[in-house]
Amino acid sequence: MSSREEVLRRVREALGGDRGVRPPVPRGYARRLTEAEAESRADVVALFTERVADNRAAVRHVGADEVGTAVAAALWGRETKQIVVPADLPFGWLAELDGVRALADTPALDLDTLAAADGSVTGCALAVAQTGTVVLDGGRAQGRRALTLVPGYHLCVVHADQIVGTVPEAVGRLDPARPLTWISGPSATYGIEAARVEGAHGPRHLEVLVVED
Amino acid sequence: MSSREEVLRRVREALGGDRGVRPPVPRGYARRLTEAEAESRADVVALFTERVADNRAAVRHVGADEVGTAVAAALWGRETKQIVVPADLPFGWLAELDGVRALADTPALDLDTLAAADGSVTGCALAVAQTGTVVLDGGRAQGRRALTLVPGYHLCVVHADQIVGTVPEAVGRLDPARPLTWISGPSATYGIEAARVEGAHGPRHLEVLVVED
Repeated sequence: MSSREEVLRRVREALGGDRGVRPPVPRGYARRLTEAEAESRADVVALFTERVADNRAAVRHVGADEVGTAVAAALWGRETKQIVVPADLPFGWLAELDGVRALADTPALDLDTLAAADGSVTGCALAVAQTGTVVLDGGRAQGRRALTLVPGYHLCVVHADQIVGTVPEAVGRLDPARPLTWISGPSATYGIEAARVEGAHGPRHLEVLVVED
Repeated sequence: MSSREEVLRRVREALGGDRGVRPPVPRGYARRLTEAEAESRADVVALFTERVADNRAAVRHVGADEVGTAVAAALWGRETKQIVVPADLPFGWLAELDGVRALADTPALDLDTLAAADGSVTGCALAVAQTGTVVLDGGRAQGRRALTLVPGYHLCVVHADQIVGTVPEAVGRLDPARPLTWISGPSATYGIEAARVEGAHGPRHLEVLVVED
């Protein structure tokens, strides 16, 4: 018996014989919104909007024809000069930009370019009303993680039909094998003195456009 | 019996009693390319390229990272000033444009704007090697039919994995309920004296970019 096997044997002995027998875990989650929270799709969208705002993110509703104008207005409002975007972002979302340079992430932009950008624009995989969360999975119009973690501003376009009620609903729809990023408001952390620090691990500013189709 | 019913009765009588019995139609089509034509995917792509060129269209191969550059080069080469595109065209395809204005078709552009544009850029649903055809079905990155029928120039981006061997293969994959446009070279028609006239019913110039992933 090698030293490694001897050590593992002792560890297993110390852990006791009932390893592998897992106690039952109650999974009585609230899988859907209560009736008071959502009687209709409009209620789900309204709840999402409220919770995104609670998370200190900006949120705005736009019609399907107005996405390009709304994106341009958001970027102009921040005096944005250069943004980075996934290469498969729908062109219409950026069609009204004027004076803002958009860099597609193909071939992959280097870190200096991402850090120098004023922000990024992406879509999302889905969004969660109850927690005001947008979830990215690296799929269409989302690109790789660095795009939304390095620049200081993230503008995320959410179609109303991408909003689900609760986290369990979202988990049920997502593929756990994909690189998931759950974003509930701008990046924030708390130091030992409980002082809130924004932007330490991701964008300091998050803005969400809800597209009502 | 109304006059209408009387007329229909006489028509049915004249057509005879065996209506609805259809003679068997032989359907022994060549559903796949012969081995000589295609032993590999590379052969299918090569055949498509050759046949597109035979159809008097321009065709070029580019790597996945080079689409933006190739689109810009094609448009600059034609001294294009303004193009129209579907709103969901991947942004990366137009990311390198400089001095060319791209108008997204949302809200729908009016006919004058389409007619004044120097060209359009779209993707396709699939392409057929044997006939050098690109097929549009109004799906992703393709937009409505007017976009590719009104302007005089159409640049179509085809991913190599969208190319099938034969027309029966293509028909098998397409949804007959969608608005299908089959494009084999630039628009051409022949008058009574058999003189070829290009651009009468669609773009006079077709250019195809084959993206090898």
